[in-house]
Amino acid sequence: MEKSWSERDLIEYIAQSSTKSPAGLRKGIGDDCAIIDQNSDEQYIVTTDMLVEDVHFNLKWHPPKELGRKSIAVNLSDIAAMGGIPQFVFLSLSLTDSLGDAWLKEWIGGATSIIEEYNCCLAGGDTVRGARLTINVTVIGSVAKNKAIMRSTAQKDQSIYVSGHLGSAAAGLLLFETNRTDLFTSSRARPFVRRHLDPSPDIVAGHLLMASGMVTAMQDISDGIATDLSHICASSGIGAIVEESLLPHHPNLPAVAAEIGENASDLMIAGGEDYHLVFTILPDKDATFEEKMSTEGVTVYKIGRTIDGSEVQLRSKGKVRNITFGGFEH
Amino acid sequence: MEKSWSERDLIEYIAQSSTKSPAGLRKGIGDDCAIIDQNSDEQYIVTTDMLVEDVHFNLKWHPPKELGRKSIAVNLSDIAAMGGIPQFVFLSLSLTDSLGDAWLKEWIGGATSIIEEYNCCLAGGDTVRGARLTINVTVIGSVAKNKAIMRSTAQKDQSIYVSGHLGSAAAGLLLFETNRTDLFTSSRARPFVRRHLDPSPDIVAGHLLMASGMVTAMQDISDGIATDLSHICASSGIGAIVEESLLPHHPNLPAVAAEIGENASDLMIAGGEDYHLVFTILPDKDATFEEKMSTEGVTVYKIGRTIDGSEVQLRSKGKVRNITFGGFEH
Repeated sequence: MEKSWSERDLIEYIAQSSTKSPAGLRKGIGDDCAIIDQNSDEQYIVTTDMLVEDVHFNLKWHPPKELGRKSIAVNLSDIAAMGGIPQFVFLSLSLTDSLGDAWLKEWIGGATSIIEEYNCCLAGGDTVRGARLTINVTVIGSVAKNKAIMRSTAQKDQSIYVSGHLGSAAAGLLLFETNRTDLFTSSRARPFVRRHLDPSPDIVAGHLLMASGMVTAMQDISDGIATDLSHICASSGIGAIVEESLLPHHPNLPAVAAEIGENASDLMIAGGEDYHLVFTILPDKDATFEEKMSTEGVTVYKIGRTIDGSEVQLRSKGKVRNITFGGFEH
Repeated sequence: MEKSWSERDLIEYIAQSSTKSPAGLRKGIGDDCAIIDQNSDEQYIVTTDMLVEDVHFNLKWHPPKELGRKSIAVNLSDIAAMGGIPQFVFLSLSLTDSLGDAWLKEWIGGATSIIEEYNCCLAGGDTVRGARLTINVTVIGSVAKNKAIMRSTAQKDQSIYVSGHLGSAAAGLLLFETNRTDLFTSSRARPFVRRHLDPSPDIVAGHLLMASGMVTAMQDISDGIATDLSHICASSGIGAIVEESLLPHHPNLPAVAAEIGENASDLMIAGGEDYHLVFTILPDKDATFEEKMSTEGVTVYKIGRTIDGSEVQLRSKGKVRNITFGGFEH
């Protein structure tokens, strides 16, 4: 242990330190959610995420209401990634004295608005005064027994899809980081600003994808497609090849990316926090699957396929490069 | 909202902001744990607590292994307070760069040791690098259906008991805060140092108290008996009178308290973090209850009784004073 652990190494070390796997736990560390027994029809799925000021969000530009919504949304997205329905939210807040009561009221209003939108309830929590705003959210959801979609169950020669545009949240973040106030209120940049400040989790899409019976593995896109698809590949023991030309994006992305000196492809591949889903489906079912999803109103975009090996590769203008775990880090 | 909210006001505000109480939630905000449906025999109970450096613990004197254990123990204590058995632990860590890998390994070793001692498992979590060590733990436990002991179900004219010595953890904390290094390793001070650094939750006692069928309301003692008994009284709509002469303490407490310029009674009444249980029992059953608990090896001490009103009162040398919510604040 010469150097400091990366987050992935640390999680791996913790997972190995805890050897017990008692009755009742169907899936522990290593997926979007843990799965625990409920009854003969359903299982509970549980996820927890900690958001820290200046690491995950910046109070200079993140309005309290949108931050309250996003704090919950990032956890709902983990529930979506298993195909579940969120139910119970637990909220821990370490608040600083510099946050006034008006700010706090807005934050709570935002958090409770998204909790109610998704028919969940706030079931418990903890509050404390600290030196840095820190928000921890735990969400418990439900999924039909043995139907949760894992990361580890993709196989080779399956098509890879995503459920929405890539790179939007990353473009929004960059607009703030480069202080392009001239663009914030422009209609061409607004979709990116919104996606960064107030992303909506793909709960309905995730649930319908699970219910289709055709999805073999799934994960939400929090750290960018390069990293999140790598999680599926590493867990499933396969590789993947992604076609750059197939990556879906908002029509304004190339122009807005150019205005801030960025390349749209880089934002789509390595940008985080879009909170859409990436998933694989049963072989030779692409047309049937796409038609079914179209009927159900779920947007899906094919971006590549799984292959032998362990790398996530990107094919761009005829050339192939390795983008394994090449995503966004907070 | 002229002034900043207290923690109690804030929790009340959040509880009122979230109006939904969906099917599946049997008890939400306002007790040691939330209660959610599981199956026809059992319910899950869920608690979450956030610990922040320099608010809840001090790295100057808290060794990493003991801090890892205590981080889990404080949540197990909430499960004990409902009479439940803990099962699944979810851990979020915001780590600072100044904590070396050796420190982290010790912390994880401590956390996993207590998780295994209580036959639980670490089922998930999150890690992040931040500016201040912050630890959030969520524990899910089980309890027989409709048997969880709430805070809100005490009635007047019931005896009040605690499950262990009071004031020990507060004495230990003061030994460190006043830097009485001469006392740390003395045998007379060791029980207090241990109770502060590495408290053990009363899981077995809590479970047997629940199973006795004689306990009417229960809460764990994290903020001191004055505050924690006030939670039971406020939730149940009653008052209480506590006899100072009945408060149980370690035999060394008066002498060690005197050595650090403190009064043993103050430590017992207002000192926090003993993590024993305070509870009320069915009327006219004291002798039967005490005999039953003695047979089962559960230590219980009667300290007073519930009364009409809304105050928690302390009778000391014939005089009565109001100690409602007069406990310890982090």
